[in-house]
Amino acid sequence: MFESAELGHTVDKETFKAEVPKLRAALLDVQYDVLEKRDFPVVILISGVDGSGKGETINLLYSWMDPRHISTLAFAAPTDEEAARPPMWRYWRALPPKGKVGIFAGSWYSQPITDRINGAMRRSELDERLDDINRFETMLVNEGALVLKFWFHLSAAGQKKRLKALEKDPKTAWRVTKESYDRLKTYDKLQDVAGHVLRVTNTAHAPWIIVEGTNDEYRSLTVGRIVLDAMKRHLAQEDVRKVPVAPPIVHPIDSRNVLSALDLSQRLAKKDYEATLARYQARLSELVRDPAFVGQRSLVLVFEGADAAGKGGSIRRVGAAMDARQYQIVPIAAPTEEERAQPYLWRFWRHLPRTGRATIFDRSWYGRVLVERVEGFCAEADWLRAYAEINDFEHQMVDAGAIVVKFWLQISADEQLRRFKEREETEFKRFKITAEDWRNRDKWDDYVTAVCNMVDRTSTGLAPWTLVEANDKNFARVKVLKTICERLEKAIKDDGKKA
Amino acid sequence: MFESAELGHTVDKETFKAEVPKLRAALLDVQYDVLEKRDFPVVILISGVDGSGKGETINLLYSWMDPRHISTLAFAAPTDEEAARPPMWRYWRALPPKGKVGIFAGSWYSQPITDRINGAMRRSELDERLDDINRFETMLVNEGALVLKFWFHLSAAGQKKRLKALEKDPKTAWRVTKESYDRLKTYDKLQDVAGHVLRVTNTAHAPWIIVEGTNDEYRSLTVGRIVLDAMKRHLAQEDVRKVPVAPPIVHPIDSRNVLSALDLSQRLAKKDYEATLARYQARLSELVRDPAFVGQRSLVLVFEGADAAGKGGSIRRVGAAMDARQYQIVPIAAPTEEERAQPYLWRFWRHLPRTGRATIFDRSWYGRVLVERVEGFCAEADWLRAYAEINDFEHQMVDAGAIVVKFWLQISADEQLRRFKEREETEFKRFKITAEDWRNRDKWDDYVTAVCNMVDRTSTGLAPWTLVEANDKNFARVKVLKTICERLEKAIKDDGKKA
Repeated sequence: MFESAELGHTVDKETFKAEVPKLRAALLDVQYDVLEKRDFPVVILISGVDGSGKGETINLLYSWMDPRHISTLAFAAPTDEEAARPPMWRYWRALPPKGKVGIFAGSWYSQPITDRINGAMRRSELDERLDDINRFETMLVNEGALVLKFWFHLSAAGQKKRLKALEKDPKTAWRVTKESYDRLKTYDKLQDVAGHVLRVTNTAHAPWIIVEGTNDEYRSLTVGRIVLDAMKRHLAQEDVRKVPVAPPIVHPIDSRNVLSALDLSQRLAKKDYEATLARYQARLSELVRDPAFVGQRSLVLVFEGADAAGKGGSIRRVGAAMDARQYQIVPIAAPTEEERAQPYLWRFWRHLPRTGRATIFDRSWYGRVLVERVEGFCAEADWLRAYAEINDFEHQMVDAGAIVVKFWLQISADEQLRRFKEREETEFKRFKITAEDWRNRDKWDDYVTAVCNMVDRTSTGLAPWTLVEANDKNFARVKVLKTICERLEKAIKDDGKKA
Repeated sequence: MFESAELGHTVDKETFKAEVPKLRAALLDVQYDVLEKRDFPVVILISGVDGSGKGETINLLYSWMDPRHISTLAFAAPTDEEAARPPMWRYWRALPPKGKVGIFAGSWYSQPITDRINGAMRRSELDERLDDINRFETMLVNEGALVLKFWFHLSAAGQKKRLKALEKDPKTAWRVTKESYDRLKTYDKLQDVAGHVLRVTNTAHAPWIIVEGTNDEYRSLTVGRIVLDAMKRHLAQEDVRKVPVAPPIVHPIDSRNVLSALDLSQRLAKKDYEATLARYQARLSELVRDPAFVGQRSLVLVFEGADAAGKGGSIRRVGAAMDARQYQIVPIAAPTEEERAQPYLWRFWRHLPRTGRATIFDRSWYGRVLVERVEGFCAEADWLRAYAEINDFEHQMVDAGAIVVKFWLQISADEQLRRFKEREETEFKRFKITAEDWRNRDKWDDYVTAVCNMVDRTSTGLAPWTLVEANDKNFARVKVLKTICERLEKAIKDDGKKA
């Protein structure tokens, strides 16, 4: 894998000097084209052996391009806000918006590689992380990003030589620390781990670019030209080249599905309702104050459902059982300008609760496979790939301690009509019925298909869907509260067993 | 001050029950009006004696209004990202956007009050903080926010009684801790400090509302009605009622001003330039790596100047002396949608560097008193009040360890014309001259006035302006680098003396 990066590639200083002005002008030019088009972000990973010129190369890119539209993110130990969320949260947060260049000095690869070298991570764990990374990068590419992953390589002798040279120059001596020499000792181990990591993540759509780091001029010119060429090609592409998705396969033999199988006639009498609801609310308020929750868990609630199915009312009953200082409700409306400049899931990542807290999503990332699918707001390939992206997203939350509870509130078409009419007569503005509500109703069957597909493809063991029979509001609300309590209790109990 | 809140106000349960449905409907209604208008945020502070029903009241507001458009922020110990920035950063970050309600459970008042009670803060320091707070709230009001500050009061006996009652009820017993009883002991001290704080911050535009906390029904109904009434009135206001500002006073006797006094003929020969620049770049690169900087300081650079004065080129030379991983360049363009929904300075606050880092602003918050003033993009009262707001902003940075260096790059009208023409002939897109540049040039004299006023009113001892004679690019770049080095050296030296 690293063979061609140990050949002693060099570029002499004159050639370099002669090449740079042209390269620089061209880079600046393409950077401005990308900026004006605002169509995709450029994500550049700079990784590799210590002393191989990572910092120098980044600084050089800054001097060649317009640094005002580049951001560089260096990732050391996570801050406490980062540590309280899934590991990828800090990288999502740092993604450059469309039109801009984001350089990751140290990236999602750094921690897994270091942990594996130190023995803090088993091989099987590493491979799981690499799978996550592959899916993350696939998502970035599908969202249109240009992803360039550089690995700077040095032979063992080359690394030693570079350290000595850096040490000798007073301008660079500060960069050589005891750790630099420690890393020399683990050279073979790093090559071994990096070889594995690079092989497994060397995908066709986000391949590694291995560059020999010994000669500054060679390394710089290589990186500069590759960045230039890749940006040009990406701009010239008519469409975003996406990783293919299989077309939907639907061959229903009968009309039974997860929604038609629901018994919507289930009811709960008022007096039972009040007592039961109060009991579950009291239980929930204890559970979210339990040190076993507060110390290591978070709660993510997702409410989806037909129009007028009673999401708002259910959310209210859940909220009433918690302290307002502990949770946040996120109503999902049209994305803002800053959100539109980012991958689809970015606007949900930003609202993930920290440990000990809860976020209630009133509509969610499932919009992509529901309204956006049915209304044709996104391409078929986009909503088809969303199922896997969503499962990844939720599993990352669960891995970080989140309890993810997802509700689909279902009512019959007749009940919806009744509620629409009732709403038209009330005075509260929040109950206003819009033309859109009536239009959605016309697409009832399309929504049924979309919901059934969604449940089939995203009701996972770690983040299952709960379908709620919601023709009777009392019944629905109690089922919601009960489900949350049970999921919390189970999680706390399981944690107790593990401890 | 607290006399009327010790009278034993009560509302009986029946009256409360009868009143709530009307109040709730009206609150929901006004909340939706505010949301639709998206004209101002509602900022509600809930503070007061422990056990006076702060949490309950917040939860009640949630049940009365639509909780999806309310956020509650509770502030405990700052996270490490917060601790590395000015104390107010966490509150700016949490401000609700226009149209929404933000409840602060614990606010900018909490820390100063606690610190003063514990003796961790002197009276004079407290008063300084209160001045800062007053100016912050004035800014909020001027930006159109509805600010409601509630203080829940209990008599000493009342507090003890409420703690006992809370303890007795199994549903609320968890809220009574050892700290609650400790606070009983400091009751007099709290009354003393709170009395002072409330008096000093009881401004006409953001007055305190003191509510007796003993009786739940009385307290809830009082808060609900005040919130309702205040939101209604604020909606009905034709214009935002602003704190008055004095009109500009300009009576120039002669034509001398800080710009005309500059000697723009100053030049630096190429050979001197290269050596001197390299020397200052080397010096800067050492200074920003100095542990005395990294551990407790940050660097905020502001670049303003006439079009084509060479801001970009200077920024490049400064950046080249630092590691790309340590600094961020923020080019200021039109605000995004999320930024427009916030007070003017919000979009600058979000980019403040943490300790050990630098942010370079390419144009800045001074846009308000320059382009926005000259082009009439904001009202006169808005740019007039900006001077003081900006000084506050910068002083908060400085207090938190930032070194704030501000440059105005000045060129002559002739030199600008020459550069415009030169640019029109180059091929680089980034040098494109737009119609706007030519229009700005027509307003040269207006800009001169604006710049002179800006320097007069915002060149403070802690954050002075450096005017740079920029007809010669070499001279300008060296002056910029030199100034930054000197400011850094001085700050580090002063820190050394203090330690």
